[in-house]
Amino acid sequence: MSTVGQVIRCKAAVAWESGKPLSIEEVEVAPPQKNEVRIKILFTSLCHTDVYFWDAKGQNPMFPRILGHEAGGIVESVGEGVTDLKPGDHVLPIFTGECKECAHCLSEESNMCNLLRINTDRGEMIHDGKSRFSINGKPIYHFLGTSTFSEYTVVHVGQVAKINPKAPLDKVCVLSCGMSTGFGATVNVAKPKKGQSVAVFGLGAVGLAAAEGARVSGASRIIGVDLNPSRFEQAKKFGVTEFVNPKDHDKPVQEVIAEMTGGGVDRSVECTGSIQAMISAFECVHDGWGVAVLVGVPNKDDAFKTHPMNLLNERTLKGTFFGNYKPRTDIPAVVEKYMNKELELDKFITHSVPFSEINKAFELMLAGEGLRCVIRMDA
Amino acid sequence: MSTVGQVIRCKAAVAWESGKPLSIEEVEVAPPQKNEVRIKILFTSLCHTDVYFWDAKGQNPMFPRILGHEAGGIVESVGEGVTDLKPGDHVLPIFTGECKECAHCLSEESNMCNLLRINTDRGEMIHDGKSRFSINGKPIYHFLGTSTFSEYTVVHVGQVAKINPKAPLDKVCVLSCGMSTGFGATVNVAKPKKGQSVAVFGLGAVGLAAAEGARVSGASRIIGVDLNPSRFEQAKKFGVTEFVNPKDHDKPVQEVIAEMTGGGVDRSVECTGSIQAMISAFECVHDGWGVAVLVGVPNKDDAFKTHPMNLLNERTLKGTFFGNYKPRTDIPAVVEKYMNKELELDKFITHSVPFSEINKAFELMLAGEGLRCVIRMDA
Ligand SMILES: NC(=O)c1ccc[n+]([C@@H]2O[C@H](COP(=O)([O-])OP(=O)(O)OC[C@H]3O[C@@H](n4cnc5c(N)ncnc54)[C@H](O)[C@@H]3O)[C@@H](O)[C@H]2O)c1
Ligand SMILES: NC(=O)c1ccc[n+]([C@@H]2O[C@H](COP(=O)([O-])OP(=O)(O)OC[C@H]3O[C@@H](n4cnc5c(N)ncnc54)[C@H](O)[C@@H]3O)[C@@H](O)[C@H]2O)c1
Ligand SMILES: [Zn+2]
Ligand SMILES: [Zn+2]
Ligand SMILES: [Zn+2]
Ligand SMILES: [Zn+2]
Repeated sequence: MSTVGQVIRCKAAVAWESGKPLSIEEVEVAPPQKNEVRIKILFTSLCHTDVYFWDAKGQNPMFPRILGHEAGGIVESVGEGVTDLKPGDHVLPIFTGECKECAHCLSEESNMCNLLRINTDRGEMIHDGKSRFSINGKPIYHFLGTSTFSEYTVVHVGQVAKINPKAPLDKVCVLSCGMSTGFGATVNVAKPKKGQSVAVFGLGAVGLAAAEGARVSGASRIIGVDLNPSRFEQAKKFGVTEFVNPKDHDKPVQEVIAEMTGGGVDRSVECTGSIQAMISAFECVHDGWGVAVLVGVPNKDDAFKTHPMNLLNERTLKGTFFGNYKPRTDIPAVVEKYMNKELELDKFITHSVPFSEINKAFELMLAGEGLRCVIRMDA
Repeated sequence: MSTVGQVIRCKAAVAWESGKPLSIEEVEVAPPQKNEVRIKILFTSLCHTDVYFWDAKGQNPMFPRILGHEAGGIVESVGEGVTDLKPGDHVLPIFTGECKECAHCLSEESNMCNLLRINTDRGEMIHDGKSRFSINGKPIYHFLGTSTFSEYTVVHVGQVAKINPKAPLDKVCVLSCGMSTGFGATVNVAKPKKGQSVAVFGLGAVGLAAAEGARVSGASRIIGVDLNPSRFEQAKKFGVTEFVNPKDHDKPVQEVIAEMTGGGVDRSVECTGSIQAMISAFECVHDGWGVAVLVGVPNKDDAFKTHPMNLLNERTLKGTFFGNYKPRTDIPAVVEKYMNKELELDKFITHSVPFSEINKAFELMLAGEGLRCVIRMDA
């Protein structure tokens, strides 16, 4: 009995109000429309961004909403005009898309698609401005175009990466967001050469993925910087060789790092969201050739401030979004890196819960425990 | 009658006091010591940096001093240990050096030699901390290790580029500083691709050399930005296709440029020294792929300030020193570009005076007339 073209009734975790536990409800998921794909989600993991928009502090509150954006699943059906995906394909939905037609998609350097660039304020599908989710006819908002906290979801084809069907979805689902962001920030943007030194600011999941990128690149020293010393023990497993806690020093951490390294590190990657860490990450790179990469999402009224001589002395400062990966073009190859054992993912997955216990994943993240909690949809 | 190993008596233009006309005096020039070269200067041109240190406002005053750093000449004799230069070689002395041994010289990316990096406060030779210039036994300070306002000067071998002897020294002398700085900022650092748009902030000699780099790179649009509209007429000869005067607009110039270009230019090069222009030059590049390059020398207490989202949206910000050229390794090939007619220099040379009228070159620069005035030493 095919579900193609039919409304699917399934379970989804609905956020009804900011900061209140999600409740698992039966929802209706409409069939995919033009350039859309309906996906059966098998595994989804929780990222900070889900928690921010659930908490909705300083964000535009949009409820009821189905959150979730790191996930792996299988295509159930495709809408009109979808030619490069078919039912049965293994896919990762991605919070930012690739239309393959705009100036950004046509540029080799950018992944900030004009059409499908992340939009946290959009709660409906682009095609018709409507939601595909409803409960008794009442629409439920989408989140990031992915809404993966549902057994079935509808996603724009431009936000779907088709991956190797042999890849274990319970592992590679974490490549949908945080791991690719940190790993790509190092390997695509900072690009350390073999033997160079790399400082990583912030040892959360994104920073540890940046450290993994440094390890894979053959960095000789990986200096982890965090205000929270409890992050250091875990970070050792991620190839971080030295630790600096800015709180342990009277002078600015950039000076501490310059002293440790004879003038500065070759590369730095900032994964904190703190403006002070962004400035330190820039100023701690060596003059002449140092490259600093910003990943953390700052506050609205932050200002990045430095003396221009720090730039004139031939330092480079860049920012990156989703590790500069184009989701459809590049993410399948990152999955292959995992399959070839070049890139380790298992160590990022510290917890796993059945869908019915999704609120436990929120509790773990709020308590700062572990890195990624994978939610098993079929359980 | 060889002068090798002898003190040479010759004419030099001595700055005795800040802001007072130079006076042409007979000076004694000691023979080159270890790793030094004595050069007969044939042509020298005047750069703003000479004027700044002559004026000595906000600089460490150091008088009497022989200024000058853009020049072309012929090696007269070499000191102990100099193996890659010999009498008769055609050379350009350069204000920043290349020892070929330090971490910067060994890095492919940096030209900021630890030993011979520009040092405006040094008035003597590195070897023995003494001056090679004197008048009646009283030492005269060197400037930038070059002091080219003299018929003969002594320079560290690491600050001497050996060039094609067929190259006309009255033209290629301008490659010693400003032209290479601007041209290199574009071709080595901003690296526009064929057909891309480039904004150049500041249409002085350095900015026009940056525009020449954009022209040579095949830029489709070269947008010149200056507060002084009198710069625009001249800039047309340098391939600048459009002009923006920030004073003509109510909104910030970066917004004007974004509107002109559908979101921003592909590359920008700042050649003003104004912190406001530096910020505008950064913020006017396109998100996703834009690269901004800072060249202008800022004031001591300036702060570069921008919202970090401008970086996260995948813009790149870099600074450069001497156009990222390594003086000994790279400048000979820039001279060849002139010889092959790839790079135009003649249009930069708007005036020429005999050595006896060197103060006229200062007057022209102070009046903002022309770009480069070449001083003929033999006249
Ligand atoms: N650019 C992108 O595409 C993208 C994608 C995902 C996440 N992010 C951002 O990356 C950042 C990191 O994400 P995460 O999930 O790893 O967060 P996290 O909260 O798990 O980790 C951040 C770490 O930074 C540390 N930290 C905070 N301020 C610091 C400071 N001043 N100096 C040193 N350490 C400091 C914290 O102690 C913490 O351990 C966040 O800002 C997130 O929004 C960006
Ligand atoms: N980084 C290096 O290696 C290096 C080498 C040489 C010179 N420089 C620097 O390059 C800069 C330019 O040198 P130049 O000789 O061409 O100087 P210049 O004075 O001839 O030209 C500067 C131009 O910038 C314009 N300008 C000033 N403020 C502006 C603003 N806010 N917006 C737009 N235009 C503005 C001026 O009107 C002027 O036309 C100077 O700061 C100089 O110190 C740097
Ligand atoms: Zn696109
Ligand atoms: Zn995420
Ligand atoms: Zn050196
Ligand atoms: Zn100069």
